[in-house]
Amino acid sequence: MSGEWRGAPPANERFDRGLATMQAIDPRQTVRLLSGVSDLAPDFAAYLVEYAFGDIGSRPGLDLKQREFAAVAALAALGTAGPQLRARLHGALRLGWTVDELVELLMQISVHAGFPAAINALTELRAALEER
Amino acid sequence: MSGEWRGAPPANERFDRGLATMQAIDPRQTVRLLSGVSDLAPDFAAYLVEYAFGDIGSRPGLDLKQREFAAVAALAALGTAGPQLRARLHGALRLGWTVDELVELLMQISVHAGFPAAINALTELRAALEER
Amino acid sequence: MSGEWRGAPPANERFDRGLATMQAIDPRQTVRLLSGVSDLAPDFAAYLVEYAFGDIGSRPGLDLKQREFAAVAALAALGTAGPQLRARLHGALRLGWTVDELVELLMQISVHAGFPAAINALTELRAALEER
Amino acid sequence: MSGEWRGAPPANERFDRGLATMQAIDPRQTVRLLSGVSDLAPDFAAYLVEYAFGDIGSRPGLDLKQREFAAVAALAALGTAGPQLRARLHGALRLGWTVDELVELLMQISVHAGFPAAINALTELRAALEER
Amino acid sequence: MSGEWRGAPPANERFDRGLATMQAIDPRQTVRLLSGVSDLAPDFAAYLVEYAFGDIGSRPGLDLKQREFAAVAALAALGTAGPQLRARLHGALRLGWTVDELVELLMQISVHAGFPAAINALTELRAALEER
Amino acid sequence: MSGEWRGAPPANERFDRGLATMQAIDPRQTVRLLSGVSDLAPDFAAYLVEYAFGDIGSRPGLDLKQREFAAVAALAALGTAGPQLRARLHGALRLGWTVDELVELLMQISVHAGFPAAINALTELRAALEER
Repeated sequence: MSGEWRGAPPANERFDRGLATMQAIDPRQTVRLLSGVSDLAPDFAAYLVEYAFGDIGSRPGLDLKQREFAAVAALAALGTAGPQLRARLHGALRLGWTVDELVELLMQISVHAGFPAAINALTELRAALEER
Repeated sequence: MSGEWRGAPPANERFDRGLATMQAIDPRQTVRLLSGVSDLAPDFAAYLVEYAFGDIGSRPGLDLKQREFAAVAALAALGTAGPQLRARLHGALRLGWTVDELVELLMQISVHAGFPAAINALTELRAALEER
Repeated sequence: MSGEWRGAPPANERFDRGLATMQAIDPRQTVRLLSGVSDLAPDFAAYLVEYAFGDIGSRPGLDLKQREFAAVAALAALGTAGPQLRARLHGALRLGWTVDELVELLMQISVHAGFPAAINALTELRAALEER
Repeated sequence: MSGEWRGAPPANERFDRGLATMQAIDPRQTVRLLSGVSDLAPDFAAYLVEYAFGDIGSRPGLDLKQREFAAVAALAALGTAGPQLRARLHGALRLGWTVDELVELLMQISVHAGFPAAINALTELRAALEER
Repeated sequence: MSGEWRGAPPANERFDRGLATMQAIDPRQTVRLLSGVSDLAPDFAAYLVEYAFGDIGSRPGLDLKQREFAAVAALAALGTAGPQLRARLHGALRLGWTVDELVELLMQISVHAGFPAAINALTELRAALEER
Repeated sequence: MSGEWRGAPPANERFDRGLATMQAIDPRQTVRLLSGVSDLAPDFAAYLVEYAFGDIGSRPGLDLKQREFAAVAALAALGTAGPQLRARLHGALRLGWTVDELVELLMQISVHAGFPAAINALTELRAALEER
């Protein structure tokens, strides 16, 4: 992490747990998600690790694979979070969801949020597949 | 269905399959979802059954339980679909998701769409639990 | 207007034109739209009349009937403006759109913004029809 | 269509009617809308044709020109569907709406969804005009 | 807090700091915000206190009064968070913003998010004023 | 302004006041905001100047610095107005908000609208800082 973090990264249990969870999802997406934030807003990058992945993402009530599925569904419906959706699609693929299952999920988004939301999410899925 | 439908309901394979899927999710929510639509816009109620449940919801690529999870995630993130979210929470509970798992899912929505979206979705979950 | 306006209403050409346009759409909705605003924020009520109806709504490039159609489409897609959508549905009905045409429009919203947006807009249409 | 579709395109009445409607709106936009979807998610491309254009877009209650107007209003208000908005603006121009009328419509979106939504939609209109 | 919390409230520095910040904003809104969450999802209520108020709301970079202003602006623009907007309007009034200043802020939201967003936020402001 | 305006710019008190306010915020952003609009939709560019800056932005109830703060909060929460958010971040910096204060504001947006909204707004802030 030393390359992206302005100053020393935080040292606390929640951060360590969150970073481990991010790495378990997808190490390359960890870099992508943090590199745009950790220089300009290092405290916020720490909150992202601590809250989104150390508090929420590490809870035992749902496993990581199921959480990535939820993330993809939520971000695809919102339609305002292309980079985050792409990162989560990478994570979902790494954690075992198949391309066909993710296509299935994105098709269903057309019911809840309309066809453009589904189509634009499929565009992010194609981009994620091309990046692999 | 005869009580809610203006005229005879559609007779086609997609409609039959969609209605069967809706009933498999939650018969009482079928009535709720259709009763507000089928008198004023019967063709649209038919499309809802045929497309959302006959085409999409009946596809084998994801099972019904997983689809309800996706629906809850998407609708909670959007924040504009309270009645539909409540109906889907009923469906998710009937198909085997526990209250704790749904709370877990809604907590995660705070990461993607903010705390108000998560809190308002929890309010729908409480209302659904009180209705059971 | 004297009953709802805190102090004297504005005296300028844009306000007069806007109020005349609002009355041409639906006098009862004029009261509804302004009564919630003119006491707490009379300047904003004036801007609403002046900009939304005096500047935009009174332009010759699209007639009033067509503009109400656009308003219904936009507000139904947004899903966050129930009271305003209902007021515009009243206006659309008064200006000559039939119930069937408005149902047709709201059905199409399901393509662009999802089924819940369309269903919730149909609920506003039913409420408007019951108020007439 | 053979060039874009993975495998044989569907053979059913709704698909044929939908594709004919898409072609009547704008053949070049048909290619644009489907090319991003039909290889990765051919079933979803079929649903788009069948539901959005075969079921909804082909209904007699509103003519195609009026439907494109509704599509532009809805997508401009949402602000999350740039590519689809541009495709619909092409369609609206082909079906007889003038540039001035579309500018008029997008100006009105500022009332319902704010100035940025209107400005960003005007940017799509400029891009569509440059593509013609 | 003992009346609303299922089990013992969390004991950690972030929670204590967050709860103190919430009380400094408005003790009655603390009860309102937590009462709908702490029984069904006590861990999430803890996260709300810890993250939203203990981490973010207690940071020295902006004072509490300025943060409530930001909260009102953001929630009014979103248009999907009525209860949270009302709570924040209470907080803003308690921390020294005048009714006129808040009306001024909400008027400006019409520029960014449209007139309905501004009008609906003014409705929440009226409700908050009536509750005081 | 003569270079960007199709025909003569409007001559009225509201336009003059609005343009002066825009220039007081940031002359370069005035050009950016208007250049995309004034050729295709000169009347709308005039409304933007007159309403958003001549009516709203020039009101004495909140000073310009505070208004830019509100604009940043609202646009960051919406997540659909990247170009406008960047222009307002420029304005906020010119009117005296520090980078640290704006980072602080955007961090808070994560509470109200989720982490992606905050992260994407931080991306616009970085872009604005690189443009200076």
